[in-house]
Amino acid sequence: MELYSGYINKLVDELAALPGIGSKSAQRLAFHLINMPQDKVERLAKVMTEAKANVRYCSQCYTLTDSDICPICAKSNRNKRMIMVVENTRDLAAYEKTQKYEGVYHVLHGAISPMIGIGPGDIKIKELVERCAGDVDEVILATNSSLEGETTAMYISKLIKPMGIKVTRIASGVPVGGDLEYIDEVTLSRALDGRLEM
Amino acid sequence: MELYSGYINKLVDELAALPGIGSKSAQRLAFHLINMPQDKVERLAKVMTEAKANVRYCSQCYTLTDSDICPICAKSNRNKRMIMVVENTRDLAAYEKTQKYEGVYHVLHGAISPMIGIGPGDIKIKELVERCAGDVDEVILATNSSLEGETTAMYISKLIKPMGIKVTRIASGVPVGGDLEYIDEVTLSRALDGRLEM
Repeated sequence: MELYSGYINKLVDELAALPGIGSKSAQRLAFHLINMPQDKVERLAKVMTEAKANVRYCSQCYTLTDSDICPICAKSNRNKRMIMVVENTRDLAAYEKTQKYEGVYHVLHGAISPMIGIGPGDIKIKELVERCAGDVDEVILATNSSLEGETTAMYISKLIKPMGIKVTRIASGVPVGGDLEYIDEVTLSRALDGRLEM
Repeated sequence: MELYSGYINKLVDELAALPGIGSKSAQRLAFHLINMPQDKVERLAKVMTEAKANVRYCSQCYTLTDSDICPICAKSNRNKRMIMVVENTRDLAAYEKTQKYEGVYHVLHGAISPMIGIGPGDIKIKELVERCAGDVDEVILATNSSLEGETTAMYISKLIKPMGIKVTRIASGVPVGGDLEYIDEVTLSRALDGRLEM
């Protein structure tokens, strides 16, 4: 894109390198930013660098937070003996929104994926095992139901079960409101296997 | 979203305010930014503020550029007597990519839209009329074929034609590769009206 000036080209290139932003969106965003008031652009730039500089891992559950201990781990009414293992902070947030979970979390920051060279040592599994050495009743594996998520769940299960801790996996099945006709066979057979008495 | 820390929430909110970025994308982007190396985040922030600070209007065609005169107006081999009127710099770029146009441009930065309170005085129409006082043979109206674009084209045509300048409008019709079956009636009837002898 040598049609734009140097500054615009640079901005379009930087934006297009972000995930989910294609070349057309990057152009639209770039022109939006250029048309925004100067102070708003500066505020956005500041918020970005500040978030990057100040956000770190919770020393207990490894979620991204800006204090030593995240708000969830800091709450006295959460059950610290129940740990839900998730792949990332967005998954944690998704479960928090349900307002149904009373325990705490452990954020792995990824899943085992030999295809792209991510091994057990690259995600926060060692840290989970260390936490499990304390007083823990149950570890709920809530990694994604993708190949990587399943592999990670299996791997963790094999490490934690011998420690005498109950290890559970969230159910797979037909999503609520889902139409059977459009659901893949693997999900359907999982839903069958996981059937519960009514 | 009070699930995240203050810095993350602020970043998500800022990103979600950008066009075409919903709440989910904003979260994905925010975590991507936080996981990026510090120097890359700082570079993106710098490129944003620099683009905003340095980009201005070309003094001739009003496209966004970083010098007094844009590269297109500065080129000696472009026909300065032919002006294509477009709504914004992205539309200019779209036409430049065709490599078929030898004239220069005039960027309006919008279109007349009484619905959202944009009148002729809010876009660069006065500047176009001033340019037409010079040596101009033809003004090609390449505003969008939306209601606003058509209104703007009509308005400009009425101003410029009496100055003895040829005013043309780019053709509407079936897009190349388009399947007639899926094209709306207005486009189809425009395509019929604009038919050319083979």
